[in-house]
Amino acid sequence: MSDVYASRRALLRDQCAAAGSASALITRPANVRYLAGACPAGAALLVGPAEDVLFATDTPTGEPEEGRLDEHLRVAVLTTPGGDPAVAGADLAVTGGADSLAVEEHHLTVARHRALHSVAPRLRLADLGLSVEQQRLVKDEEEIACLRIAAEISDQALGELLESILVGRTERHLALELERRLVDHGADGPAFPTSVGTGPHSGRSRHRPTDRRVEEGDFLSVCLGANYRGYRCEIGRTFVIGTTPADWQIELYDLVFAAQRAGREALVPGAPYRAVDHAARSILDSAGHGEALSPWTGHGVGLEIDEDPQLAPTAMGKLDACVPVTVEPGVHLPGRGGVRIDDTLVVRPEADGGPELLTITTKELLAL
Amino acid sequence: MSDVYASRRALLRDQCAAAGSASALITRPANVRYLAGACPAGAALLVGPAEDVLFATDTPTGEPEEGRLDEHLRVAVLTTPGGDPAVAGADLAVTGGADSLAVEEHHLTVARHRALHSVAPRLRLADLGLSVEQQRLVKDEEEIACLRIAAEISDQALGELLESILVGRTERHLALELERRLVDHGADGPAFPTSVGTGPHSGRSRHRPTDRRVEEGDFLSVCLGANYRGYRCEIGRTFVIGTTPADWQIELYDLVFAAQRAGREALVPGAPYRAVDHAARSILDSAGHGEALSPWTGHGVGLEIDEDPQLAPTAMGKLDACVPVTVEPGVHLPGRGGVRIDDTLVVRPEADGGPELLTITTKELLAL
Repeated sequence: MSDVYASRRALLRDQCAAAGSASALITRPANVRYLAGACPAGAALLVGPAEDVLFATDTPTGEPEEGRLDEHLRVAVLTTPGGDPAVAGADLAVTGGADSLAVEEHHLTVARHRALHSVAPRLRLADLGLSVEQQRLVKDEEEIACLRIAAEISDQALGELLESILVGRTERHLALELERRLVDHGADGPAFPTSVGTGPHSGRSRHRPTDRRVEEGDFLSVCLGANYRGYRCEIGRTFVIGTTPADWQIELYDLVFAAQRAGREALVPGAPYRAVDHAARSILDSAGHGEALSPWTGHGVGLEIDEDPQLAPTAMGKLDACVPVTVEPGVHLPGRGGVRIDDTLVVRPEADGGPELLTITTKELLAL
Repeated sequence: MSDVYASRRALLRDQCAAAGSASALITRPANVRYLAGACPAGAALLVGPAEDVLFATDTPTGEPEEGRLDEHLRVAVLTTPGGDPAVAGADLAVTGGADSLAVEEHHLTVARHRALHSVAPRLRLADLGLSVEQQRLVKDEEEIACLRIAAEISDQALGELLESILVGRTERHLALELERRLVDHGADGPAFPTSVGTGPHSGRSRHRPTDRRVEEGDFLSVCLGANYRGYRCEIGRTFVIGTTPADWQIELYDLVFAAQRAGREALVPGAPYRAVDHAARSILDSAGHGEALSPWTGHGVGLEIDEDPQLAPTAMGKLDACVPVTVEPGVHLPGRGGVRIDDTLVVRPEADGGPELLTITTKELLAL
C-alpha cells in the first residue's frame, strides 16, 4: 500500500505547485489518513516540496482504528506538551525554505490559523480548499474491497438480528446488539451511531434510539454500517412486526421501494447528482410526500460516512465510475411512522453490469 | 432550569459588552448546550443585545441526547438546504444593528469566518476566546447532581462486569458489554470510547480495545464513564486475573495507588493545578517511571469528557470549589503492562469534608 500513499501525495503536490504553493499542510483527519495511511489523534501532515512529514503529539500506536501508517513516511513526535502539530508543520515548512503553504481553511480554526501565522509570519498561507476531498471521490479497487467487506459485515449483523425475537425489546438495546454483532464479524467499530426506530419513530432519518419497545403491528426501521479499515458503509431496512402488514404499510413500503429502485437505476457514470436525487424524489413527491422529505436522498461514503457527492436537488456535478454512494429515500408520517430503504452501491459503467450493490440483504417487506 | 440558561447568557452578554461587543455567536456544541439547554447538530446561538436566538438546520427533536432546549429561547430553523446557522446568526446580528460580534475563533474555521465576513462585511468580528469555557469551569449543584448520577451508573456497570467470568473474553467484547450496561442503567450513552486493556496493554491511557483475550496472570485495566443528561464522568480501575498477583504486580499497584491518593488529597480550593499534578507525578517519578508518564495526571469533566482545568506540570491556575476533575495517574511498562487508577471527584472546601469522591468502586487490588 505504501506506493499508493506516496502517489496520492505526489498528485496533491502537483496540484499545489500548479496553484502556486510548494507545500501543503493537511489537518482534516480523514484527509490525513487518506494520504498517510493513518491519522493519530490531532496529527498534521506536511506535504513538502522535498519531504513529507507527519507531525503527531504521541507515537502512533499502529492499532487498527488508527490505520496503518505508510512506513516510508517520516514521523515527528512533538516533545512540548500542548504543542500543535500544525504549528510544527508550518515551522518546518519555513525552515525548508517554503514561502507559501496551502492549508485546509474549511478545517483549520481561526485561532490555529493565527498561530501558524505567528510562528511563520513571512509564510503566505493559501487555501487548499477541497483538493483532497475531490481526490478521495473516486475510489481505487483496494478501497472498494474494504467497502465490500464493510457491507458484508453489515449484512451479517442485520441478518442475525432478524433471526432473534424482537417484540418487547427497546430501540437502544437493538442498536447496541447490532453494534456488538458488527464488531463480532470483524468491524473496527460502527461506521456511525446505529439507528433503530420503532412504530411512530420508524422511517425517520438518523433517528437516535430511545427506550420505546417493539410492538406488534409496528414498522421497524434499522440503519447501521461497519467501519472496516477506516471505510464506512451504510444499510437501512424497514420491517413490519407481526403476521400481516396493514394496507397503509404495504402501500407506503411499495412506494418507497419504487423510489429507491429508481434512484439505484439512475446510478450511471455521467449522470448529474441531482438527476439521481430527482429519480427517487419525484416518485415520493407525486404521491404527496414532497414536503417532509430529507434535503438529500443519498451521499458518498468512504473514509467518512457522509462525504461528497451529495445527491440533492441543488447539487452540482456528475457521477463518475467507482464512486460509492448511498441511495436512501424514506417517508415518515408524523405519529404513525414510515419507511426508509438504504443501500450502498458503487457506480459502474453499464458494460461492467451497472451499479454494484454492496449491501445485499433483501428489500422485500419482511413480516417478523 | 430555564432561568439557569437565561442567567448564563446574561453573564456572557455582560462580559461581551465589557469587552466592546454587543453580541456573541456561539458555535462550539458544548457551549451552545450550556447556554441553551440543548445543541441540535450544527446549531449556532446568537446572544444579542436584546434577544437570543438559536439557529438550527432542522427542528430540534427534544431527544435526551440532544438535551432539553430552554423553552424561552427563540429557535430559527433555516429554510435553505446547506445553509450555515452561524452565517444566519451574523446576518441577524447586523439586521439588529450590531456593529461588532464576538465569535469563538478556537472553534470557527477560517472558511466559516470568511463566510460570516462576506454576509456582513461591515460587522467587526472580535474573538470571544474561552469565555464560555471559563464560565463552565465551576459547576452548580444541578450539574454536579448529573455528574453524581453518571458516576453511580458507571460504578454499577463496572460492578456487574466484575461478577462475570473474564478469562478468555476479548478487550472489544468487554468494552461493548460495559457500554451496554451503562445504557441499561440509564446512561444516555458512554461518555467516551470505553477502554479495556489486558496483559501488555494494561495501564495504557486511552487504549483502544483489541481482539486480545484476558489470560490468567494478566493485569486488566478498564476505563469507562456514563453520559447522563450531557454530563460525563470517568472511572478507571486495574485488576489482576487469577488467584495470586505476582510481586511486581503488587508493587506497581501500590505505587500507582499511592500516587493517585496523593493527587486526590491535593484537591483543595486554592491549590495550583500543577501542585495536584506534582503530588501524584513526583511519587511515580521518584520510583523511576518519570519518563513514560502522560503529560497530565487529571482533567476537568462536565459537558465534555476532557475540559479545563488540565492537571499538568505547566498548567497555570488554581482550583476552585465545585470544580469536578479526574485524578488518573498510571504506569505502563512496555511489553509487561501496567496500572491506571482513575476517579472523578468534586473539589470541596475542607469545612465541607474535602473532595467529594463520585466514583466509589473499591480501589483495593482485586484478584478476579
